[in-house]
Amino acid sequence: MRANDRISDWAAWGRSGHAVRLDDRPALLAFLNEQLGGLDMPIPPMPLNEIAVPPTRLTSDDLDALAGVVGPDRVDATNPGRAIHSVGKSYRDMVSAFRGTLSRFTDAVIYPRHEHDVANLLAAAAAADLAVVPFGGGTSVVGGVEPRQGAHRAVLTLDLVDLDHVRIDHLAQTADIGAGAFGPAIEDVLNGEGLTLGHFPQSFEFSTFGGWVATRGAGQQSTTYGKIEDMVQAVRIATPQGLIATRLTPASAAGPSVLQQIVGSEGVLGVITSGTARVRPLPECVRFKAYFLPGWRDGIDFLRQMLQCGLRPSVVRLSDPVETRWLMKTSSDKAGLIRQVGKAYLKHVIQRRGFDPDRICLCLLSFEGAPAHVRADCRQAAGLASRFRAVALGSSPGQSWKRERFSLPYFRDDLMARGVMVDTLETATLWSNVEPLDRAVRHAITSGIDAGQARGAVMAHVSHVYRAGASLYYTFLARHNGNDALDQWQRIKTAANRAIADNGGTLSHHHGIGYEHQPLAAENGPLAVQALKALKATLDPTALMNPEKLL
Amino acid sequence: MRANDRISDWAAWGRSGHAVRLDDRPALLAFLNEQLGGLDMPIPPMPLNEIAVPPTRLTSDDLDALAGVVGPDRVDATNPGRAIHSVGKSYRDMVSAFRGTLSRFTDAVIYPRHEHDVANLLAAAAAADLAVVPFGGGTSVVGGVEPRQGAHRAVLTLDLVDLDHVRIDHLAQTADIGAGAFGPAIEDVLNGEGLTLGHFPQSFEFSTFGGWVATRGAGQQSTTYGKIEDMVQAVRIATPQGLIATRLTPASAAGPSVLQQIVGSEGVLGVITSGTARVRPLPECVRFKAYFLPGWRDGIDFLRQMLQCGLRPSVVRLSDPVETRWLMKTSSDKAGLIRQVGKAYLKHVIQRRGFDPDRICLCLLSFEGAPAHVRADCRQAAGLASRFRAVALGSSPGQSWKRERFSLPYFRDDLMARGVMVDTLETATLWSNVEPLDRAVRHAITSGIDAGQARGAVMAHVSHVYRAGASLYYTFLARHNGNDALDQWQRIKTAANRAIADNGGTLSHHHGIGYEHQPLAAENGPLAVQALKALKATLDPTALMNPEKLL
Repeated sequence: MRANDRISDWAAWGRSGHAVRLDDRPALLAFLNEQLGGLDMPIPPMPLNEIAVPPTRLTSDDLDALAGVVGPDRVDATNPGRAIHSVGKSYRDMVSAFRGTLSRFTDAVIYPRHEHDVANLLAAAAAADLAVVPFGGGTSVVGGVEPRQGAHRAVLTLDLVDLDHVRIDHLAQTADIGAGAFGPAIEDVLNGEGLTLGHFPQSFEFSTFGGWVATRGAGQQSTTYGKIEDMVQAVRIATPQGLIATRLTPASAAGPSVLQQIVGSEGVLGVITSGTARVRPLPECVRFKAYFLPGWRDGIDFLRQMLQCGLRPSVVRLSDPVETRWLMKTSSDKAGLIRQVGKAYLKHVIQRRGFDPDRICLCLLSFEGAPAHVRADCRQAAGLASRFRAVALGSSPGQSWKRERFSLPYFRDDLMARGVMVDTLETATLWSNVEPLDRAVRHAITSGIDAGQARGAVMAHVSHVYRAGASLYYTFLARHNGNDALDQWQRIKTAANRAIADNGGTLSHHHGIGYEHQPLAAENGPLAVQALKALKATLDPTALMNPEKLL
Repeated sequence: MRANDRISDWAAWGRSGHAVRLDDRPALLAFLNEQLGGLDMPIPPMPLNEIAVPPTRLTSDDLDALAGVVGPDRVDATNPGRAIHSVGKSYRDMVSAFRGTLSRFTDAVIYPRHEHDVANLLAAAAAADLAVVPFGGGTSVVGGVEPRQGAHRAVLTLDLVDLDHVRIDHLAQTADIGAGAFGPAIEDVLNGEGLTLGHFPQSFEFSTFGGWVATRGAGQQSTTYGKIEDMVQAVRIATPQGLIATRLTPASAAGPSVLQQIVGSEGVLGVITSGTARVRPLPECVRFKAYFLPGWRDGIDFLRQMLQCGLRPSVVRLSDPVETRWLMKTSSDKAGLIRQVGKAYLKHVIQRRGFDPDRICLCLLSFEGAPAHVRADCRQAAGLASRFRAVALGSSPGQSWKRERFSLPYFRDDLMARGVMVDTLETATLWSNVEPLDRAVRHAITSGIDAGQARGAVMAHVSHVYRAGASLYYTFLARHNGNDALDQWQRIKTAANRAIADNGGTLSHHHGIGYEHQPLAAENGPLAVQALKALKATLDPTALMNPEKLL
């Protein structure tokens, strides 16, 4: 995927051919009208070729020096190439791209072929005093690839797309994977050998291995497969001071974990060039289960007890009542949720079990592995579910979800075009703190929406669970206030982050910190930030790497 | 356990009442005579009260200042107290203690009661320019508690025994545990609530939670429960620059892991005062299995395939042929291995299956959890074992091992008294590298023993296994060369460490680095060491903390 292939992604989540139109989903449109008090008519984003891009600040000497490292065909200082590499996929990014108000542009995009190209480019950048932003899939939703510090220095973006090897060690069941390898390409190679990495983040189609490692990503099957930091056994990072290749070992007691200092470093220490991750055989058997729980608290208790009795479902997704209604109305799939769990059945459930229709929560689960184990796990989960008076919905809601699992972010595009602010944020905490944290975050978001005198909605799900706790993932929508949309959004976002920090949550469970989640000091205190700054000063003494991110 | 309680441990592994005498194990004594060509008559260690301890270098002003922080009864500058806190349990330590040739002594032992005592003691130490060594159970086998840098500064040892709280969060199934809490005390509290931490290192009886965290320890059931770094959800560390309390969360994407920078820091960044670890319900059912495998390679393949098909035994211990013979002869227990798997049966196995008696390997496994899961796992393991022509030995060898699981280190005491050098070392690597690494390490140890013109033996086991790889644990014995014993040992140890470093192993899987495994640069390269030094310089700018360890 070279620069030109990314053009269709401009000011939108993914490929234009996959766009979702609310007009095609009348049930959802009605639901949104009810929640938000009417939507605007959609307007189109500003076309890429109409964006005002200032000239590159690189001199022709600079460009020649870079071309000397990688070859002239690997240096792109064109306007479209630069614009596309100047935004991620955060709400802030998308508003700027959509409106054509983007103010920061990278000065050139370079495509290294090898790790030593990266090392040489860092040396060239240091020599010419250029900032460097590593770029994988560009799907950061926290401003992770934004070309900042642009007033002081010109900025180079390193597009790592060509560092895309996947080399399998069959005996160890590990794969050495290049930072620029995309999700589908990785799974294609592995699946061909009967293996899988099992990492399926929402951004799977467009994000890269290096991006996952740099941001501590989590896939939708993390409860079985772990987060990316649990999968990686070693990484390689090119820093301005040289290369670090961590020892390839399944575990170590040789001091603090250097590996876990690099994982999550978001490009501020150097460019992660590759890593070795454990892989495993494709599951023999996958079975989806779905349940209606009578309420959000019951659902959370159900998940906690399931994890604490040792069950490890692959997909876990418990939606709160609002998200449950959204999901019921989202599917355009004729075999989907809306058909399978239609109104008639829902009515029946409400009447027979006495469920409050405004409190019903949908829980999707999948179990995978050897057939006998999957059967036993499903039985155990069903037994536990019945103790919560859950209504079993069979396997089709899960299968419907799976078919549409990567389409959810596309909804944002049409919503934004219709004057709706929509963003997500996420955190994690211990089970004993889930309820207070959840209350505080909802209150912060709702207050923020109200303060903007807008109509809006908050919905949430739990989608990554552990013996000790869970992540909470929020989506908020509100009619936006015209040109103030970003101020309005920032107020909500700031209030939500403060609520998370003040109530024992982590600032992010799997999106990272980037530009938008700072200051990091909320997380582990100022001394920990000082320690991380010392680490950065050692590896990147002139602070070339991804300025103004993370720290 | 205050100073006086530790006296019986002087120059020996554990409590004197639990000492093991080879005279009581004639089969083992015969085996050792065969392997080592005769043992000396045992000689006693130098008594503690005959050890020459130089006067403390602390002035009475220093001692008064320390007493001002914690109270005079919590400052111990007596000779026995100082001597006991000047050694760990490494072979080097034990030789020095045994012979009374110890040359480095801490200048006072302080017993803080609270985290704020620790913080105040660090401030006092900084003011008086004293070095500080944190002391948990004192069972380091890598020189981790040695009071070094003694020529420049006086040394304080902080005995953390009174930071021993265990507070359970039942909903989250976590426990907040003080650094000084000992294994048995932790399990007593947890077991009383139907819970377990599941961390049972060889040193369990004498080691502390803080020590486990500081050294990235692993328990004998790590394959089910994880290493300590997998268990901890947060830690608190008092550094000379202040406190870091990492955010209590089951997972996070808020930058590099601060938690995993502190775990494994071996006292060089500060004093770990407490941590929060996940716990879980005591297993409903535990079942031991044991097998004879026809050879070491088969055994390793058996374990690899077991892990890669998703089985997670709790105890895993595969002994090589020499260790298998040792274990068969070690047990004094009438219901033990030697009776259960007696000569007659062994003969039968050899004859019927055509196993080479010199290559037979013993594999102990246990499975735990819900009865139905344990049954299914045992069945699956048995099916796999039969593909390796393994001979099933029932549950009694495992139960016998469990009864004696903490007695093995006691053998060293009588061996040393009889002129035998005995030490252990361990590493980990990917499955694809187990064989070459194993060959290289054995070759290095054997060559080292031969170079000393001594008779000796090397034996090994695999006891911590992962999908991607395994740890290798070596025990080597040789008749020692009188007063050169430590030189002879150092040559072997250095050669083994170099073989590990040069052949892709990690310098330690669970013992840590301490004083004896340096330089750490072998592990992740010099730039990673520089980064760790920068971290230390930030948290401990005058380098008070545990000098000459780890870095």
